[in-house]
Amino acid sequence: MLFVKKFINDPENVVREMLEGMERSHKGIKVSYDPAFVFRADAPEKKVAIISGGGSGHEPLHCGYVGYGMLDAACPGYVFTSPTPEQIVEACKTVYGDKGALFIVKNYSGDVMNFSIARDMLNDEGYEVESTLVADDVSIREKERRRGVGGTVFVEKIAGGAAENGYELKEVKRVADKAADNCASIGVALKPCILPHTGKSNFELGDEDMEFGIGIHGELGIERRHIESADSIAELMFDSIKKDKSMEGKRIALLINGMGGTPLMELYILARKIISIASETSEVSKALVGNYITSLDMQGASLTVLLLDEELESFLNAPVDTPALRN
Amino acid sequence: MLFVKKFINDPENVVREMLEGMERSHKGIKVSYDPAFVFRADAPEKKVAIISGGGSGHEPLHCGYVGYGMLDAACPGYVFTSPTPEQIVEACKTVYGDKGALFIVKNYSGDVMNFSIARDMLNDEGYEVESTLVADDVSIREKERRRGVGGTVFVEKIAGGAAENGYELKEVKRVADKAADNCASIGVALKPCILPHTGKSNFELGDEDMEFGIGIHGELGIERRHIESADSIAELMFDSIKKDKSMEGKRIALLINGMGGTPLMELYILARKIISIASETSEVSKALVGNYITSLDMQGASLTVLLLDEELESFLNAPVDTPALRN
Repeated sequence: MLFVKKFINDPENVVREMLEGMERSHKGIKVSYDPAFVFRADAPEKKVAIISGGGSGHEPLHCGYVGYGMLDAACPGYVFTSPTPEQIVEACKTVYGDKGALFIVKNYSGDVMNFSIARDMLNDEGYEVESTLVADDVSIREKERRRGVGGTVFVEKIAGGAAENGYELKEVKRVADKAADNCASIGVALKPCILPHTGKSNFELGDEDMEFGIGIHGELGIERRHIESADSIAELMFDSIKKDKSMEGKRIALLINGMGGTPLMELYILARKIISIASETSEVSKALVGNYITSLDMQGASLTVLLLDEELESFLNAPVDTPALRN
Repeated sequence: MLFVKKFINDPENVVREMLEGMERSHKGIKVSYDPAFVFRADAPEKKVAIISGGGSGHEPLHCGYVGYGMLDAACPGYVFTSPTPEQIVEACKTVYGDKGALFIVKNYSGDVMNFSIARDMLNDEGYEVESTLVADDVSIREKERRRGVGGTVFVEKIAGGAAENGYELKEVKRVADKAADNCASIGVALKPCILPHTGKSNFELGDEDMEFGIGIHGELGIERRHIESADSIAELMFDSIKKDKSMEGKRIALLINGMGGTPLMELYILARKIISIASETSEVSKALVGNYITSLDMQGASLTVLLLDEELESFLNAPVDTPALRN
């Protein structure tokens, strides 16, 4: 028998058991187990339904963001594995009201394919479904190939705010697309995550190495570097984003995100420098610091910058009440 | 030079730089740096001031709980080191209103001594100060020697609620003492934490070992055991608390807490079983699942049970708005 140093039972059942734990812990959500999805206990009929999903292991994303002002449903695949079209179709039908549905999809081939199949199936049955793609990882030069990472949290929050505000589907999609276009992210790993089904990491890092430009599944990044001070890493991260997005003179929101195994103390030490640099040329309207989109127990961090306008900022700050995000 | 795999600059400055990061991230708090403490930007005058503190490395405890409905000030010592009397005295004077102050102190000799000295100094100057001791770690048989761990989160929340409700000092202390008496906690570690100033762990664990009954500084616990399934660990934890506190037929609140390096997925897998067992004989009114009181990047978890009565439950659920806890 494999003894993995994790609080798990059978590795095959980690997602199902996590969902059972979530359902027992949070009164505001309900869970369907077959097919698997989490949905709002009070999903209202008179708004656009916001639905997302993706591989598990990134908690609280996505299931922890189901609730008032954010997602109506989330479809978790197995660890680092896309959800099936069936999950997405059933989730959509469960929370579909009278204003259609918007899918928020991170740019991974499996997610894109399965959400697209689900959308076709739903359209064929007469459901009105649109889709917003999040592809914010600036560690990849070609925009079409960029992975969807930390920006997803902002896009889900803002789309949820627009839907709660009574916007029609076309308008919710416009706002979600704008949020996705205005996001840029970069990640760095100090130690890889350990997979529950193998007990092993999916990449190796030397004792004094860090991986710069990492994805949320441990995909390798831009380059392997010698570990540096928090301030140097903060500068590297900020510079990578600055090369991609002009932030000068703009109001911005920041997400300084832990990858699951990084103490809050270290995230605040990064935040200290990042907010300081950002404030030199931009107005930092809001900073979220904590574990928002993770990679199991990876020790690492990511920075997401969202360029704001009045509309995005109002929905970013709109009321939200989910297991993992409240205001 | 020492290359620690952490997002830090000079290990000597981790607490100061964390505080700078917190101040830049959260508009609701202010920071004094010399002596070091975090306090509410809007500290009201017409209530009992609630003040806590202790070694750093347990974030979000205590500094992350400064805000409406919880703490008025928190005094962070260096990593795993008590704050000085000077910090506590200045924090108290800064947020002291017209109804006195309550200290919430975890049962560690340094904390107890320094909060006691501070209290004497303040009393000598005419300040009215009371103190509540939290000693909820049932891994230690003798009640006087029990460490203050997860129950501290509940005590701070409830004392803050009582103070916000306009209770006088004597009444706030009575409620906080009752909450502290009604708490019991137990912790387990799978992997030790790495200290920022040494780059090393402060205890060792074999590849298939876990330490049961661990403290939040890595103090060794009841026994070293072979790692077991999440369900078995949940049962062990619950049984340890049941031996100490009779929960049968009572309403309870649960804190299923990560030690900093444990993914949310695993905490929910523990929560699934713990809530299931607890529900057999008690009514689970509330379950908090996440990183509330940590030990840097330790991989581990703790369970806290709070026996509720109507008064405790109302203050537990009262409005709160802090960086790390909102409702």
